[in-house]
Amino acid sequence: MKVRVAVRLKPAILDPQGKAVHRSLQQLGYSEVESVRIGKLIELEVSASDPEQVRMRIEELSRKLLTNPLMETFDIELEDDGRDHD
Amino acid sequence: MKVRVAVRLKPAILDPQGKAVHRSLQQLGYSEVESVRIGKLIELEVSASDPEQVRMRIEELSRKLLTNPLMETFDIELEDDGRDHD
Repeated sequence: MKVRVAVRLKPAILDPQGKAVHRSLQQLGYSEVESVRIGKLIELEVSASDPEQVRMRIEELSRKLLTNPLMETFDIELEDDGRDHD
Repeated sequence: MKVRVAVRLKPAILDPQGKAVHRSLQQLGYSEVESVRIGKLIELEVSASDPEQVRMRIEELSRKLLTNPLMETFDIELEDDGRDHD
């Protein structure tokens, strides 16, 4: 099962990398871009079949190991979670 | 309009950061995790209303500036594509 963890800086946290990219885009004529924030996209292949359990375990490891809860938030998406897609 | 650019390493490209995270997860008992790949999630706020034009511009800047086309691929997602918008 493929699992995606999207990691974003919290809104209150400065993002110097995003700011630098934004400045470059402005200088290169992409003036319609108003802000840029750069996060991480962590994709895991997981050998388990129970989507509830997979979600629980991935939430746990994301909170404990993949992210810094003081500075970051995360969303988990299971590629095949066995439910109807919305 | 919010635009998300998901940047991933091409499958043939080694991902040492992902490998290091994978090894740590194994050591910490998350043995069900079979692989980890780490990409970027770039989120832009764009002041334009024509979704087709926004997509074209963001594709251009992603190809030219945000990614390395030799090593990376990207997907663009517009949060509000204007179709059901007033």
